[in-house]
Amino acid sequence: MRISELSARSGVAIPTIKYYLREGMLHQGEQTAATRAEYDGTHLRRLRMIRALLEVGRLSVASIKKVIESVEDESLPTHEMLGTAHYALSPAVEPEPDEEWQAARADVDALVEELGWDVHSDAPTRDELAQTIVRMRQLGVSIDLAPYAEAARKLVAEVEMGTIPFDGPRDAAVEALVLGTVLYGRAFDALRRMAQESESARRMTH
Amino acid sequence: MRISELSARSGVAIPTIKYYLREGMLHQGEQTAATRAEYDGTHLRRLRMIRALLEVGRLSVASIKKVIESVEDESLPTHEMLGTAHYALSPAVEPEPDEEWQAARADVDALVEELGWDVHSDAPTRDELAQTIVRMRQLGVSIDLAPYAEAARKLVAEVEMGTIPFDGPRDAAVEALVLGTVLYGRAFDALRRMAQESESARRMTH
Repeated sequence: MRISELSARSGVAIPTIKYYLREGMLHQGEQTAATRAEYDGTHLRRLRMIRALLEVGRLSVASIKKVIESVEDESLPTHEMLGTAHYALSPAVEPEPDEEWQAARADVDALVEELGWDVHSDAPTRDELAQTIVRMRQLGVSIDLAPYAEAARKLVAEVEMGTIPFDGPRDAAVEALVLGTVLYGRAFDALRRMAQESESARRMTH
Repeated sequence: MRISELSARSGVAIPTIKYYLREGMLHQGEQTAATRAEYDGTHLRRLRMIRALLEVGRLSVASIKKVIESVEDESLPTHEMLGTAHYALSPAVEPEPDEEWQAARADVDALVEELGWDVHSDAPTRDELAQTIVRMRQLGVSIDLAPYAEAARKLVAEVEMGTIPFDGPRDAAVEALVLGTVLYGRAFDALRRMAQESESARRMTH
């Protein structure tokens, strides 16, 4: 298909497609004439993935670029590629140089240990959770993370992991992991806010 | 305390505090001289709430303003105030004018009906979930939302609702609802990505 059809079918404007091509986020089409290239289903799928990560995942273009680079770097072993792509999904969190932060981070490390989870000591999710705990404590929001950890583990082990083709081609595995992380995450978040509305309504009218 | 101390204790820069005062997002301090005002714990708490919504919730300043306005509008009945604040937490999603969207939105409505949840037909979460489903389908990500809905319901009913003081002052209830929504949401999301890392590591090394 030509770029105009690719644009129409993906819902991504032509200048944006050209930007992704220049940035290497989208592979070149097959040049059929000096000013004309042909695109195919792989281009359409990549554009839909970028759009989902932008709109649904609310990732920055820089983060999406990192995800795509790790998929395309053939020298990375599969588990490192998955790790790099996965870490790119975490928001950048700056550790704060005070005791509150250190206490929260120590609590996160203790929780991971207690859960027996296999999470790298440098994983950005540890700092992300530490930041959340610091903010909760400053605001006096009490928290027991155990039921959240158990619900997360259950959904990941029983639903999400089954959808990832670990034995297939590497880009299929990373795409499934990244999209699953982002899309199931948004779905869960919307459902949780629906449940809050529903439970609030019940408690206020009874 | 003076504005310099308020800044040091909240971690919010003085020009930003002045901006919040001008925008009505922070109530004025007690004027003790022409160029001097005294602030107290209520100011500190409000600033910490704004900071948590910005950094952890990644809400826009416009959304935070809407949340604060609904808390301060005494003419709103409590359940409407909670609803307005809660809806401000949802990202703005534009319905798309095609059949794919309509089918996804119909599926969301059917799901809410089946769950027996009390969610307003105009709730922004319905469109948010519809958008997520459209993107999933375009990318061929298969999804069974039932386990997510059940996990969400359980966490909300058994953990989160217990932390909201529905019978106390209205600002305490809305603050607890808003902060709980945002902070527990971030905590769950980080835990879920940790669980993914852990489960992936296990499946790839065994």
